[in-house]
Amino acid sequence: MSITFYFAPMSTASTVHWSLEELEIPYEGVQVNLKDEADKKAKLGPVNPNMAVPVLDHDGTVIFESAAIQIYLGETFGVDKGLYPKPGPKRGEALKWLVWTNVSLSAAVGRWLGNTQGEESMRNEAAGAQARKDIARLHAMVEANLSDRDYMLGENVSLVDFHLVSHFHWMSYCGIDLSDFPNVAAWVERCSARPANQKLMAA
Amino acid sequence: MSITFYFAPMSTASTVHWSLEELEIPYEGVQVNLKDEADKKAKLGPVNPNMAVPVLDHDGTVIFESAAIQIYLGETFGVDKGLYPKPGPKRGEALKWLVWTNVSLSAAVGRWLGNTQGEESMRNEAAGAQARKDIARLHAMVEANLSDRDYMLGENVSLVDFHLVSHFHWMSYCGIDLSDFPNVAAWVERCSARPANQKLMAA
Repeated sequence: MSITFYFAPMSTASTVHWSLEELEIPYEGVQVNLKDEADKKAKLGPVNPNMAVPVLDHDGTVIFESAAIQIYLGETFGVDKGLYPKPGPKRGEALKWLVWTNVSLSAAVGRWLGNTQGEESMRNEAAGAQARKDIARLHAMVEANLSDRDYMLGENVSLVDFHLVSHFHWMSYCGIDLSDFPNVAAWVERCSARPANQKLMAA
Repeated sequence: MSITFYFAPMSTASTVHWSLEELEIPYEGVQVNLKDEADKKAKLGPVNPNMAVPVLDHDGTVIFESAAIQIYLGETFGVDKGLYPKPGPKRGEALKWLVWTNVSLSAAVGRWLGNTQGEESMRNEAAGAQARKDIARLHAMVEANLSDRDYMLGENVSLVDFHLVSHFHWMSYCGIDLSDFPNVAAWVERCSARPANQKLMAA
């Protein structure tokens, strides 16, 4: 069994990185310099025409999109490790949150960053302000879901937590604090303290 | 077994609608008027705080996000019907394209529509033009993938085709033609001719 993992620091690859460490799967990491077109072309060209990280190559099966990789790792390796639900209702909940993070939530973040920190000629201030409101509304969904549980799917930590907490790490880096969301703040702290994340943060 | 499906015409619910018909699963459809706030609140409020369709309720398990629903339907009902890969490498490919459609591709479409047809005060012309180029670049990935096969995963049609063809139906409605992408055009026609889609189009 061979896994090659294409990543870059401070990208959506971080969530996959964390999951690989939690699952204790051996992998070869290939770091890509996203600011170096030649490096991107050499490393990502053969595996992802969209030139984005993360990409996972598992015995020749190439998967891009972090949520797809998480779902694949979850069903392939996570069930036995207790970090991903077996098929059934709880699996449905996991899929819902993993996809929602990268679709609804990330689209709002993309609009916010593009319109406030992106190339100046492509910004629109009103669209940026609206996106910031949308992010708060979406973060409130996570706050509500955590009102009666320690982790997104209930009592047990899962890949869904690593995935969504990684989003909040990124938000923190972008200057969005969690003072309005105490459940989220406590859960981010709880998950971030895990040895697998601490190892990656130290690296 | 009971399935309730919340949908609206001309939305990302269409892809799930098509899959439900192909899978021949009995379901109760609940049509939501997305322009009527009271209707949205009454029907979607209890199942999706994000107030978006589609939503699927399967015996009390509530799933939102069309790609998540497709993956759930695929693994729950699709493998036996030959419309979704069993766990393994082909499953990884299915996940990659289902998620990519709703993340990378839909983000570009969202930027394009928002900046060209959205609320006027929130548009930026340069961002709209860039997004249109990004859409063409991403559509070229589908064209390339179809260069040696009849369907996205190979010889056999799958939920991935219904999902991505639904995207191209939407693009066609938005005025994007496929003259630069002959493989895509032929595949859209091939998939669209299926009885399940014809039934929905007639309805």
